Amino acid sequence: MIHSTALIDENAKIGKGVSIGPYTIVHGNVVIGDNTQIGSHCEIGVPSALANGKPLVIGEEAVIRSHSVFYEGSTFGKKLSTGHRVTVREKTVAGEGLQIGTLSDIQGHCEIGEHVKFHSNVHIGQHSTIGNYVWIFPYVVLTNDPHPPSNVMLGATIEDYAVVATMSVVLPGVTVKSGALVGAHSSVGKDVAANTVVVGNPAKFICDTSKIKLKDGSGQSAYPWRRHFHRNYPEAMVASWIAEFNESSASDTEQR
Amino acid sequence: MIHSTALIDENAKIGKGVSIGPYTIVHGNVVIGDNTQIGSHCEIGVPSALANGKPLVIGEEAVIRSHSVFYEGSTFGKKLSTGHRVTVREKTVAGEGLQIGTLSDIQGHCEIGEHVKFHSNVHIGQHSTIGNYVWIFPYVVLTNDPHPPSNVMLGATIEDYAVVATMSVVLPGVTVKSGALVGAHSSVGKDVAANTVVVGNPAKFICDTSKIKLKDGSGQSAYPWRRHFHRNYPEAMVASWIAEFNESSASDTEQR
Amino acid sequence: MIHSTALIDENAKIGKGVSIGPYTIVHGNVVIGDNTQIGSHCEIGVPSALANGKPLVIGEEAVIRSHSVFYEGSTFGKKLSTGHRVTVREKTVAGEGLQIGTLSDIQGHCEIGEHVKFHSNVHIGQHSTIGNYVWIFPYVVLTNDPHPPSNVMLGATIEDYAVVATMSVVLPGVTVKSGALVGAHSSVGKDVAANTVVVGNPAKFICDTSKIKLKDGSGQSAYPWRRHFHRNYPEAMVASWIAEFNESSASDTEQR
Repeated sequence: MIHSTALIDENAKIGKGVSIGPYTIVHGNVVIGDNTQIGSHCEIGVPSALANGKPLVIGEEAVIRSHSVFYEGSTFGKKLSTGHRVTVREKTVAGEGLQIGTLSDIQGHCEIGEHVKFHSNVHIGQHSTIGNYVWIFPYVVLTNDPHPPSNVMLGATIEDYAVVATMSVVLPGVTVKSGALVGAHSSVGKDVAANTVVVGNPAKFICDTSKIKLKDGSGQSAYPWRRHFHRNYPEAMVASWIAEFNESSASDTEQR
Repeated sequence: MIHSTALIDENAKIGKGVSIGPYTIVHGNVVIGDNTQIGSHCEIGVPSALANGKPLVIGEEAVIRSHSVFYEGSTFGKKLSTGHRVTVREKTVAGEGLQIGTLSDIQGHCEIGEHVKFHSNVHIGQHSTIGNYVWIFPYVVLTNDPHPPSNVMLGATIEDYAVVATMSVVLPGVTVKSGALVGAHSSVGKDVAANTVVVGNPAKFICDTSKIKLKDGSGQSAYPWRRHFHRNYPEAMVASWIAEFNESSASDTEQR
Repeated sequence: MIHSTALIDENAKIGKGVSIGPYTIVHGNVVIGDNTQIGSHCEIGVPSALANGKPLVIGEEAVIRSHSVFYEGSTFGKKLSTGHRVTVREKTVAGEGLQIGTLSDIQGHCEIGEHVKFHSNVHIGQHSTIGNYVWIFPYVVLTNDPHPPSNVMLGATIEDYAVVATMSVVLPGVTVKSGALVGAHSSVGKDVAANTVVVGNPAKFICDTSKIKLKDGSGQSAYPWRRHFHRNYPEAMVASWIAEFNESSASDTEQR
């Protein structure tokens, strides 16, 4: 399951059932969990002085697609899934179930929670902090320098269940709070309140997220999205989300 | 003409005169037309359950540049031309002469007409519909989810001869009609009328495309662009475009 | 130091102490300076009729990271440094110390001065002119066609010490003058005066750059950035910058 053309350093710690594609390079300071699949043409565990000797740790059951580059010094929980040609620099720590889309670029020194989804071509600047169940869509950039170039680093923070839509920029030091939605092509210069929608350049408050209706004829709110969107989340998590909204419907009924 | 380091599955159907570069992988469920050239470090025909067993079909005389990734399940007419590191997912059908620029990402389930040109770093969301002779410029994203994340998919539609300029977003379900121009850095939330210009965030009507003059000193209109721009289109097509505008000039003269 | 799997054309001129990574291809019309390091999976010196036979010249002590593609016909001064998967087309001439971030795309026919820094995912259109000590941040596009598609090419100009922040577009023929700052997510349709800040879509004048204060508690101006930001510049250059501002402080004091 390790292709004969893959170049694996003898010091790399490779778990059971790992597959590694043709023309992929695995450096020595790397720990790869059981049953992980790594595609072709990757470079895994690129040596870097910035990693201070820390290994790259990939959890179990990861899928890393072709042409991806990971540096040493970052750690990923199990079930990491990447598209093609992702780049991940040093000293990022991510929880279980992280998804990194094709061409995304994680610049390092980031904290990333559980079950976060980055779509394609997402650029996560250094020192970003990302909660759990966050969604970041294509061509979004999280910045960190308030007056570039400088030595001041103010990473962005995206809290649990928040969503940043396509081609938005989150400016340095900004927090997008829990459950908020940043509409497409926005430039976010101020903190976004929980469960609100902002959009525009500069981004402005539009409404509470609950005002946005699903365009599926159901008449339901589109947010919180965990009420209706469950694809690829763990079964137990989905069950808890379903229970949360059943209870909340029951409680609504009682109140009437 | 097939490099000794290329890894070609014995089930792949490779036409006559095909060249395949070093370190490229061709999977089994692939049909490659005669005289196609594939560069180095590509992965062609990536297996995917989403393709439902359909092959990747590349027409004759294609040029696929290095580091590109094509999944099985899509079909391309002849003379496909790509830049480097393009990614094309399952179930896209494209006509003759498609050009896909470096780093572009076609997400799959798209319909693409004849002689469409995507410049670099174009992101075509799933379920996009693109007519003939369309131009899409760098860092444009065609979206599809009106309230992300959800299971509702409303692909964008770009009609014949329309142009979407750099770093614009076409929002879900929007149609850019025939011959329209979306200016750079626009966010298009409503349908764009045929042969009109919109620009801005949100994009607003500016003028008819015929009002934009060529900056070449000729005093002519810059649109329809097929009047003056013919590079890399088939000779017969260019001849018909020339005839179209000769007739229209003649007819203008008669009317005077 | 040249990996056994690297494919090096016998006509390539490779300097002393050059290292070349696994699965990298070096074509024949290439001159690589002493002590340059080239990573894995690159393609260096892609043949092109557009280069008119001119070689690719990489200066001494360059670092080119994995999966990068350089065409023949461009010339780089010493200490070029690139991220991963950069693409550089024909007929660009760049001075010493150019930095090209991951996924950046230099389209060719560009003039680039000394110690220019392109961050990740920068798109430099053909016929751009870039001065010395310029900074261009992620997802910036420099355009060149005033009415796409056409045969008119009006490249953008970015003068010395100017800064273009994340996800901005510089429209065709625009000049960003010396020391100016284009704020994030801007669309720049008019020339930007020296040492001024513009921001927005369309970009508008905000203030002189000197009005922006460093967010480090010092109370100093953030611009000119060379007063406080020196990372990775040559020592002699940094010394001259320090002297410049010491003198200017002294002169300020004398005036009081």
